[in-house]
Amino acid sequence: MTELTLIRQIRTQAARQRSKSLALGIGDDCAILYPPAGHELLVTTDFSLEDRHFRRAWHTPESVGHRCLARGLSDLAAMGAQPLAAFLSLAVPAECMHATRTRPAWVERFSNGLLALAEKHKTPLAGGDTAQAPGPQALADLLLLGSAPRGRSLRRGRARPGDLLYVTGALGGAAAELAALAAHPRRFARLHDDAPGHPHLFPQPRLAVGQALRQQKLATACIDLSDGLSTDLAHLCEESHVAAEVDAQALPLHPLTAGHADALHLALHGGEDYELLFTAPAATKVPARIAGVPVTPIGRILRLRRGGPAASLISANGLRTPLHPAGWEHFSKSGK
Amino acid sequence: MTELTLIRQIRTQAARQRSKSLALGIGDDCAILYPPAGHELLVTTDFSLEDRHFRRAWHTPESVGHRCLARGLSDLAAMGAQPLAAFLSLAVPAECMHATRTRPAWVERFSNGLLALAEKHKTPLAGGDTAQAPGPQALADLLLLGSAPRGRSLRRGRARPGDLLYVTGALGGAAAELAALAAHPRRFARLHDDAPGHPHLFPQPRLAVGQALRQQKLATACIDLSDGLSTDLAHLCEESHVAAEVDAQALPLHPLTAGHADALHLALHGGEDYELLFTAPAATKVPARIAGVPVTPIGRILRLRRGGPAASLISANGLRTPLHPAGWEHFSKSGK
Repeated sequence: MTELTLIRQIRTQAARQRSKSLALGIGDDCAILYPPAGHELLVTTDFSLEDRHFRRAWHTPESVGHRCLARGLSDLAAMGAQPLAAFLSLAVPAECMHATRTRPAWVERFSNGLLALAEKHKTPLAGGDTAQAPGPQALADLLLLGSAPRGRSLRRGRARPGDLLYVTGALGGAAAELAALAAHPRRFARLHDDAPGHPHLFPQPRLAVGQALRQQKLATACIDLSDGLSTDLAHLCEESHVAAEVDAQALPLHPLTAGHADALHLALHGGEDYELLFTAPAATKVPARIAGVPVTPIGRILRLRRGGPAASLISANGLRTPLHPAGWEHFSKSGK
Repeated sequence: MTELTLIRQIRTQAARQRSKSLALGIGDDCAILYPPAGHELLVTTDFSLEDRHFRRAWHTPESVGHRCLARGLSDLAAMGAQPLAAFLSLAVPAECMHATRTRPAWVERFSNGLLALAEKHKTPLAGGDTAQAPGPQALADLLLLGSAPRGRSLRRGRARPGDLLYVTGALGGAAAELAALAAHPRRFARLHDDAPGHPHLFPQPRLAVGQALRQQKLATACIDLSDGLSTDLAHLCEESHVAAEVDAQALPLHPLTAGHADALHLALHGGEDYELLFTAPAATKVPARIAGVPVTPIGRILRLRRGGPAASLISANGLRTPLHPAGWEHFSKSGK
């Protein structure tokens, strides 16, 4: 498969998707989009680098494609936005373009994974660039455009002292599954489809929850959990100029953390859960489920004190310890 | 320099630039943009890969940064758009982040080159992603957003038989300078600034020309010359379902092609001139200069005949030969 056939193939796969916001897709100097009237435009980009964000020996190509897009969709979810279009820049070593009579090329399976998630969230693939990678590693840069009514996007910097702190879904599952994948990659070699219960291989961006939080004016601030609760909470506190405390006992542990001696550690620092962390005034009645996803209160926002920690953890026996950001640096700690 | 300092530094450099369309730059889950009311949104992405689009041994870091952005700005120019914002995803080997007491880091000089061109065209750097490259090569993915009044963007596919074919500036200069650079890289080692007369190292995207063509309704179709006249003309013909003929004698050769036995070849197939190729009805009075840039008629659009070539070249003695797309594949032919 040459670069041109690769582009044509992705274009054909992408053409299945239609959107009224996409006036002109792949094929001119630029793609043309019509954002909804009265909306502001949201933009997020994410690099996915082989051996840092994924490994071809561990992750199925479908999982890599899914994860590339999930990261950006989760950023849009955190702002309460709806996706408009995705743009993929993909550089792969030559062997990734080779198909055999019985096995499709790596890139084809990668696109299948990416486009399956795109279709699920009505996100047309509107363009991008492809190239042979200069080195032996594959890499993808994914750009996502989204929109939300002007001035209404959820932001990180608007949490106020007295707000309660909530998290969607369960925590630590992605880190637990990554540990299992690292130990026994072959067990996961057949996971081609966006199957439920695979928080690392097929994370589910919380777009419907984010949109509901925005529409129902429930959240004061919101961020997605990509780097880990401790790190992302630190970002939220820093941007909002507040402190926070988290009740260790309240954290919703993912079932995959069962049996892990360090389940709490995975939930606090594991990262890549792609759940939403948000704040709401104590007087706001936040439902226990939003868009079918469980929502759990896990702590509260406090006034920032000079010299005090931005975030604290309160353990079962009432002991308070500083909660330092110790987010998972993807493979820098786990893989190599 | 760690990745975080790299991000902070680019953020600080980028913060110098302000734009009324950019509501929120680097620092939340997404950047927020306000495209002008009644405008459509244009999006283009370009990968710049070391050893394919640039070489650290040949190009100064400032030139690499400039060229990364120039490619996308030229795409916007071809559609008559104005830039809204740029997003940079940058992956570099560790040594590119090292500064010494006397020498700034490669990435700092790269950003300087990119931001100087961004400032010239009032394009804020609104976000992006940075990472250490998995291999020894640097690479950048640059995304550009632009806008134009809804339905008024210039397109490739609207040339009609009878239209005349025009080109801006001069041709072959980028290929001629690349040949000189490959032969004597040291001679170019001090080219840090966006100096005029360096079509390969510091190409000048024709944004003002593209906007004038759109505003004055001069052009029926437009494309930028990134792959070379023969290849980009083929794209324009294909998308417009027309044929074209080019008068070899009419081609405006760049002064740097002087002394090259194959000057015509460089002008036809050299690529990376980032000039505009456009069509206008024969009755339209196209000025000899637009926004200070010379504009030259070089041929005409014909009806597409079954079995005939899409493009032909008419030489000085009136001989007509098929003009096949033979665009420069960047370094695949020239450099290695």
